[in-house]
Amino acid sequence: MKNVKYHLLSLLGMAVLLAGCGNGSGSNGALNSSAAEKVYVAPGEQDEFYAFMSGGYSGNLTVYGLPSGRMFKEIPVFSQFPTSGYGYSEETKPMLETSFGFVPWDDAHHPDISQTNGELDGRWIFINGNNTPRIARISLTTFETEEIIEVPNSAGNHSSSFITENTEYVVAGTRFSVPIPQRDMPINEYEGNFRGSLSFISVDPEHGHMDIKFQLMMPGFNYDLSHPGRGDSHGWFFFTTYNTEEASTLQEVNSSQNDKDFIAAVNWKKIEEYVNNGGGTLMPAEYAHNIYDEATHTATTTMKKEVLTVDPLQVPGAVFFLPTPKSPHGCDVDPTGQYIIGNGKLSADLTIHSFDKMIAAIEGEKFDGEAYGIPILKFEDVLAGTVKSGGLGPLHTEFDGEGNAYTTFFISSEVVKWKLGTWEVIDRKPTFYSVGHLMIPGGNSRKPFGKYVVAMNKITKDRYLPTGPEMEHSAQIYDITGEKMELLYDFPTHGEPHYAAGIPAEMLASKSKKIYRLDENKHPAAVLDPSQARVERDGNEVHIYMSTIRSHFTPDNIEGIKVGDKVYFHITNHEQDFDVPHGFAIIGQNTSELLIMPGQTKTSVWEPKKVGVWPFYCTDFCSALHQEMQGYVRVSPANSNIELSWSLGGD
Amino acid sequence: MKNVKYHLLSLLGMAVLLAGCGNGSGSNGALNSSAAEKVYVAPGEQDEFYAFMSGGYSGNLTVYGLPSGRMFKEIPVFSQFPTSGYGYSEETKPMLETSFGFVPWDDAHHPDISQTNGELDGRWIFINGNNTPRIARISLTTFETEEIIEVPNSAGNHSSSFITENTEYVVAGTRFSVPIPQRDMPINEYEGNFRGSLSFISVDPEHGHMDIKFQLMMPGFNYDLSHPGRGDSHGWFFFTTYNTEEASTLQEVNSSQNDKDFIAAVNWKKIEEYVNNGGGTLMPAEYAHNIYDEATHTATTTMKKEVLTVDPLQVPGAVFFLPTPKSPHGCDVDPTGQYIIGNGKLSADLTIHSFDKMIAAIEGEKFDGEAYGIPILKFEDVLAGTVKSGGLGPLHTEFDGEGNAYTTFFISSEVVKWKLGTWEVIDRKPTFYSVGHLMIPGGNSRKPFGKYVVAMNKITKDRYLPTGPEMEHSAQIYDITGEKMELLYDFPTHGEPHYAAGIPAEMLASKSKKIYRLDENKHPAAVLDPSQARVERDGNEVHIYMSTIRSHFTPDNIEGIKVGDKVYFHITNHEQDFDVPHGFAIIGQNTSELLIMPGQTKTSVWEPKKVGVWPFYCTDFCSALHQEMQGYVRVSPANSNIELSWSLGGD
Repeated sequence: MKNVKYHLLSLLGMAVLLAGCGNGSGSNGALNSSAAEKVYVAPGEQDEFYAFMSGGYSGNLTVYGLPSGRMFKEIPVFSQFPTSGYGYSEETKPMLETSFGFVPWDDAHHPDISQTNGELDGRWIFINGNNTPRIARISLTTFETEEIIEVPNSAGNHSSSFITENTEYVVAGTRFSVPIPQRDMPINEYEGNFRGSLSFISVDPEHGHMDIKFQLMMPGFNYDLSHPGRGDSHGWFFFTTYNTEEASTLQEVNSSQNDKDFIAAVNWKKIEEYVNNGGGTLMPAEYAHNIYDEATHTATTTMKKEVLTVDPLQVPGAVFFLPTPKSPHGCDVDPTGQYIIGNGKLSADLTIHSFDKMIAAIEGEKFDGEAYGIPILKFEDVLAGTVKSGGLGPLHTEFDGEGNAYTTFFISSEVVKWKLGTWEVIDRKPTFYSVGHLMIPGGNSRKPFGKYVVAMNKITKDRYLPTGPEMEHSAQIYDITGEKMELLYDFPTHGEPHYAAGIPAEMLASKSKKIYRLDENKHPAAVLDPSQARVERDGNEVHIYMSTIRSHFTPDNIEGIKVGDKVYFHITNHEQDFDVPHGFAIIGQNTSELLIMPGQTKTSVWEPKKVGVWPFYCTDFCSALHQEMQGYVRVSPANSNIELSWSLGGD
Repeated sequence: MKNVKYHLLSLLGMAVLLAGCGNGSGSNGALNSSAAEKVYVAPGEQDEFYAFMSGGYSGNLTVYGLPSGRMFKEIPVFSQFPTSGYGYSEETKPMLETSFGFVPWDDAHHPDISQTNGELDGRWIFINGNNTPRIARISLTTFETEEIIEVPNSAGNHSSSFITENTEYVVAGTRFSVPIPQRDMPINEYEGNFRGSLSFISVDPEHGHMDIKFQLMMPGFNYDLSHPGRGDSHGWFFFTTYNTEEASTLQEVNSSQNDKDFIAAVNWKKIEEYVNNGGGTLMPAEYAHNIYDEATHTATTTMKKEVLTVDPLQVPGAVFFLPTPKSPHGCDVDPTGQYIIGNGKLSADLTIHSFDKMIAAIEGEKFDGEAYGIPILKFEDVLAGTVKSGGLGPLHTEFDGEGNAYTTFFISSEVVKWKLGTWEVIDRKPTFYSVGHLMIPGGNSRKPFGKYVVAMNKITKDRYLPTGPEMEHSAQIYDITGEKMELLYDFPTHGEPHYAAGIPAEMLASKSKKIYRLDENKHPAAVLDPSQARVERDGNEVHIYMSTIRSHFTPDNIEGIKVGDKVYFHITNHEQDFDVPHGFAIIGQNTSELLIMPGQTKTSVWEPKKVGVWPFYCTDFCSALHQEMQGYVRVSPANSNIELSWSLGGD
């Protein structure tokens, strides 16, 4: 029996933090000169790998290079991004629409790159919004968010977004169970009344568009993390659970009572077949589906009205529970698909289940009872082995493709390398401090690329120059080409990276888009030639169709605008060279700037409040005459009868 | 006569970009192994310098370490920052209030660290908002924005924010001239009717609070950049101008007609005396003054109603024009205060004026006419020398304190090192590509620290793995300890850095605040002990007074909330350990999360729209039981009569 004492745990947490502090000075573990050369990418040379790190509470996805640890881009996903106008411009505001209205933020957790035959194919990367449940798809050609789908009947969309080995589905499991459908009921009647949904979202193989194929309605546990089967286990999906106690208050204590929770094994191919044959129940549900069209540079929102739900008891043989000790957190599957690793976060040991043993146990119907009608397999029947790590608080495991696994230990702050099959510990290295996720490029596929492991730490403390009470989190990169890991470098991360996805540079770099072609621009308000630039009034709406090229706006001056007007600046960047954006901003605007890439059209709204002559200008230094790239708008009183007029380049 | 042809300039800009491309492959200029070791900061060791880089169109200020080039923090200043809730939380929304209403973005340009006796004192850093004119002050103890003051009668607040040598004033000059006071008038009547304001904002020596002392009303030119005098020239301030043509359309062509524009030399001590003796004219003006109080963790906005203006013609001997060739951009003053450097951006040469010669010319009244009544000094009388650089497009100059100056050349993409006094070019190194600003720690004070120069490039192209059409800008660090500069490393920057300020690590690190003391928390809604946690209803407003500590919220469950309520979560983080924030988010909220530092109280508003039981959780991984740090709110129909109730830790 696990019967963790509340105060003991609080003290434990504090002790770890204090212990962390003492290790901060001096140079820990890296042989400086060789490590320096290993992470150094000389001017003019490029990194070996892309690393896509979740931004956590930034809501975004960040792109790093390995081994340098340099951040190349922050891709806005679930959060407003004033830097580029994402979530502020008229074209991108629909991306943040939900059934709850406009939501300008989320907590982005687990990026996963699309796969073909279980190997990274580098087409898209998916990431989940945890707070207001959503899944986003980002293009790995444009590095822009192309689609966001809301997930109804979910709350704390944490065991997401992981994909099956041919990107058939991106899977999104709820962390918090809730009443389904939602209703007004006492919280303390949670047990037996709340439910957890596991959503299987299909991905169109051609254009990547997502659609919720079905939601599996599970008992009211917390579904923490998940991973697909691969190889022989392709067709299955595995989810860790905690709070099988179904506690509804002070979960810090009450959700840690059971010695074992479960890993839920879901045969999604069987359920897919059931659904394709007409199985499942349509239920009313409201959720937003937002798609960004690259041709029109514009997002649109569709509100969807129903979702197909599946009761697991209606599909016998589709769902089983594997008992797993100590509130398992990470749920990881090795590259062969044979081993399912449960990282019991309050444990010293790792539990590894065998897929073959699981199938045999199912076929032998050797059950150890059931939970809400779902068969529980016997722990001993499915156990492949245990790693006696000597660490404490295992969270996540990745693989190098050479038969080794690497597990993070939060409480003892270390990465432990161990051997699949023999379960022996090969090496352990300290992390600074309190490591969460880790990432090996491709380490979550049938073909890991090895070479580096990146540890993502939850606590930073003294690793960098201090920046007041708030600091960035911190990553560490280790060389894993030898028997023992070698710590190479620490680098800060932006937001809180919960997981990351790495891929060799050559798989993405050559197909990265450099410009948007002006002759493919289908934005309805695009100005494809400066001669089309114009200003039109429609009641109190004024539409300014404007073009930019180094270094002027056309038109540059506009008169006839009145207080009370709603002015739309539709701006097309006529550059067709790589890396020549133009920006746009006008004084006193109650929104962000626009950052407009070559060939792109974006729209900003301005509601002038004051009479006067007000300047706008280019916000991205574009040429030696960038400072001259400006114009004025004359704003007259609301009752003025000044006609619209504008100047087209000095005339 | 400068009579630049329009198409020629466009071609020139393109040629530079194309030329840049060819240089991208191979390792340019760095001796790899020694450069690798020079920029490598081993795990557990720390950087030598802080570098505060403006975020440009991100609106923020970023903190980097040198020589590593690692970004330690993004400090939100003028833009909403979903990551921490800045500009979303009730306490911080007032920071973004202006006379135009709530403005969620700006274009942050020129950081400058406070000085005492012309040397960096490391108390505060100031930065300007360019689009909706504002100046911000950031604490270098908490690394948080503490104050923002709007600047009326300004537009494109670009020649800002530079400080005098005892931080008497932070100075903010307008880039765009406008009608003052604003009025409804034709744009093409600009000449002679628009004016440019130069604002001298006093800084309280104790707490740093800002107040506009006076605004100097200048002719309608564009005031581009500025720097204070120092040493002998302390008491003066110098501003570059362009568009002395007073063109109002297609400035790319029409503002480049005059062979020389001016550097405006302003004797602010003389004007200060005039003002202290009752000079100047109060005029009505509306501008916001926003102050963040560290004790209450809360910002408040005061709308101010008038500003003191000064007509330069009323203060004889206070303002002079120094003719300066080729649309000068940067305006830099050497550490001795003797040399004022005008970087003529359409020139190959640099023009250096002599302060002593200027004083002699003023005393000799050797004028070469006047502009709107302001005396123009003779070019030859004030010229100290010319640097025949061989480069093209000089923008900015910094100093190493060893008698050398370093100037960036945008068009020829290089940094040129030259000697003060002899004007000889000592070294030149290419940059990649199209460099704008540069920074030497303290290079903008009487005591530069030398060692490194950081070049901030406007174009990135092939320096890093590509990330689609949009890429980060790029910085390069050079070792300047030798006769010749040595390129060490390239690192991406976040946003567009227009200038930066560097300071030795030891001047800030030891006084960096680690936590906010709970016993000093004066927030009116703070919960200083969990026993004070409670929920109160006031009409349709519900106030939840909540505490957090690893790893639970008190209260964790709340009932009696109704659709249509406006729910305020006032959350106090009870941790008193370094680097243990807690986050807060609730599903479907139309705002960002809160990130709450130890000892701090923050407030988030939620307007529930749907009946049901909705979870909230901690968004920053805080302990082994972080996943259990959650609670629920029951939302009943609007007409429900369920009483408020809540649970306090498992009871």
